[in-house]
Amino acid sequence: MLQEIHRNTQKLVPLVHNITNYVTANDCANITLACGGSPIMADDILEVEEVTAMSNALVINTGTLNERTVKAMFVAGRKANELELPVILDPVGVGATRLRSDTIMNLMKEVYFSVIRGNSSEIRAITGNGNTRGVDASLKEQITDVTVDEAIELAKWTSKRTGAVIVITGRIDLIADHDKVCLIRNGHPMMSRVTGTGCMLTSMIGSFCGANPDKLYEACISAVCAMGMAGEYAYEKIMERNEGTASYRQYIIDFISKMDDSLIEKGAKLEMR
Amino acid sequence: MLQEIHRNTQKLVPLVHNITNYVTANDCANITLACGGSPIMADDILEVEEVTAMSNALVINTGTLNERTVKAMFVAGRKANELELPVILDPVGVGATRLRSDTIMNLMKEVYFSVIRGNSSEIRAITGNGNTRGVDASLKEQITDVTVDEAIELAKWTSKRTGAVIVITGRIDLIADHDKVCLIRNGHPMMSRVTGTGCMLTSMIGSFCGANPDKLYEACISAVCAMGMAGEYAYEKIMERNEGTASYRQYIIDFISKMDDSLIEKGAKLEMR
Amino acid sequence: MLQEIHRNTQKLVPLVHNITNYVTANDCANITLACGGSPIMADDILEVEEVTAMSNALVINTGTLNERTVKAMFVAGRKANELELPVILDPVGVGATRLRSDTIMNLMKEVYFSVIRGNSSEIRAITGNGNTRGVDASLKEQITDVTVDEAIELAKWTSKRTGAVIVITGRIDLIADHDKVCLIRNGHPMMSRVTGTGCMLTSMIGSFCGANPDKLYEACISAVCAMGMAGEYAYEKIMERNEGTASYRQYIIDFISKMDDSLIEKGAKLEMR
Repeated sequence: MLQEIHRNTQKLVPLVHNITNYVTANDCANITLACGGSPIMADDILEVEEVTAMSNALVINTGTLNERTVKAMFVAGRKANELELPVILDPVGVGATRLRSDTIMNLMKEVYFSVIRGNSSEIRAITGNGNTRGVDASLKEQITDVTVDEAIELAKWTSKRTGAVIVITGRIDLIADHDKVCLIRNGHPMMSRVTGTGCMLTSMIGSFCGANPDKLYEACISAVCAMGMAGEYAYEKIMERNEGTASYRQYIIDFISKMDDSLIEKGAKLEMR
Repeated sequence: MLQEIHRNTQKLVPLVHNITNYVTANDCANITLACGGSPIMADDILEVEEVTAMSNALVINTGTLNERTVKAMFVAGRKANELELPVILDPVGVGATRLRSDTIMNLMKEVYFSVIRGNSSEIRAITGNGNTRGVDASLKEQITDVTVDEAIELAKWTSKRTGAVIVITGRIDLIADHDKVCLIRNGHPMMSRVTGTGCMLTSMIGSFCGANPDKLYEACISAVCAMGMAGEYAYEKIMERNEGTASYRQYIIDFISKMDDSLIEKGAKLEMR
Repeated sequence: MLQEIHRNTQKLVPLVHNITNYVTANDCANITLACGGSPIMADDILEVEEVTAMSNALVINTGTLNERTVKAMFVAGRKANELELPVILDPVGVGATRLRSDTIMNLMKEVYFSVIRGNSSEIRAITGNGNTRGVDASLKEQITDVTVDEAIELAKWTSKRTGAVIVITGRIDLIADHDKVCLIRNGHPMMSRVTGTGCMLTSMIGSFCGANPDKLYEACISAVCAMGMAGEYAYEKIMERNEGTASYRQYIIDFISKMDDSLIEKGAKLEMR
């Protein structure tokens, strides 16, 4: 599956419109290129409709939203819906402030999202439960073997209610599409010590969905899996070389850019439920 | 001292609200995570009060200020004062333009800053002397053994007048808190060939102060010292590997993320005056 | 030539005002420092005139333009013209949206540009021909040995019409100044798998032109050549070390920061026509 999703992405080179934050925009653009897509970042209301219209997918990330860019998110989201393009939401910090919660709740009312990716507390927040502390995955809020059944129910319920594939990332990653659920046990705790691993994953999901619009669930599984394997690879690399978190980030993108059939599938730790 | 400040930071994982520039925001977020903090970047006036209210410290950096974000700086600064949180100012480019000078002078009138960090010309500019050429530390403006006594007087005077711990970075770094002064001779000239080493230091000061609100002077010394040692470590690493300034930046963050008791204190070149 | 241009840059340390995008701003700042310049990023209409006035060159890059920053581009551009500073335009995505096309066409009417750098489709678009797909150089739109004569005519014609040195980058790079043309065959296809190699080159051109205002054509050739050699060097380095595109980006900047006489000129693949 991962191989096919990835090959389609490399063949089509989907153009992915990102309305995203200025903290991780460079990493998002680079991982989009690394996984086979082509990024375009544009957030002015005067041009987002046109940019979305020429793209294969739209990614909306609320990391550093402001009044100006929020308006552009609505316009671009509606255009993508009109054109039936995959729209991916990364509700960064939902629950943390009224601006973020209102924006994301209203976006979810007015725009149909194909995929919503967040950490456990963000996904709880978009369902109206829980609040968020900052933007980084807190360890105690992560899915563990103890809390996994509860998380599965939350994800299934949210998927049915929103119609979106729900991706919850954390120590265990979980992808739910209505009643289908996939758990992924790839990745490494060090991923939470680098800013933007979540944003980068969301942009990669955008590329994979843009190139595989009829296989969104599989595209999400593939992207999460690839990112997890990248986290494992990068950890080995920095241990070997006695390096730290900045090198770690670099090797994550390096891995994604080098992914080929020999790297893929053999390392995937998937559990379909 | 450095050990204790650092351990407290890793234990508390302070949330640090950064209103900063889009040039170095990613590096600031990553060094915050590397040193044990948790970053949140938010600059819209509709949410900065809430973000500051859930944070342990606020960092205001004027690197790419604009009318919109300037307003948010005032609102967030006042909120932090109300909650008695440490507020750290990085007056990037003060003296270079009227917008920067006016913004920073007015911020200093309306907001009480716990720490102000800049290069020598920026600190002179906030006292009403001198002008700034761009945003990078010019070599001739740096503190040297010849000019150190003058710089100490400037820093002490500015600290007394503002009530803030004053951090002047350059070839020699200087931390002043009223009559206490610490000189630090760590670091490497190559640090000025990477953008954002100053911004990163300011964000690290934010993390250390957020976790050690009763030891701001010590927190500043520790952050400056850690950054200086990171600069030395990174220099050795690129010489070993025949690399350049981009790798240098990476190893600075790597070092901060790997700091532990064995790396700390033994390399510190402190002189208390 | 490259040696002299580069030495002048290192000697003068030109201050380069960049009004640029938030995706690649960090890389642009770092390559500016790496090649010997000093970057200042400022895009608020209240300060751009002052920033331009203290700079040696102005770079305008439309990567993530918005209504606010577009206004600043006009103001800064006019100021630079008044002061006879080199102004370099990187018309990112011209032809892709009405906002970009209108902005760039109007900028070209009201501001005299010393240098315009883009990929083949962007340069076609500023002449009123062709449209752009996203912001990354599409392979089929690149200059090859088959299309080189057509590209030379386009570049000469555009140079005469605009008065600017025209730099078209792609598999073959081309610099045209009225009737003079230089082809450069340095570089590596992997450069298109990293975001911002074009933006970085434009910022480096800004530094070289800022330090060599009487030799703009030579400054452009030198910058393109240096970037191409950096791309070759970085490719060797990642092959040696089995790394990917993120490391590739890093080694490009590393190379520029280490350039010295022994690295320069011997690798240049220039053809003057």
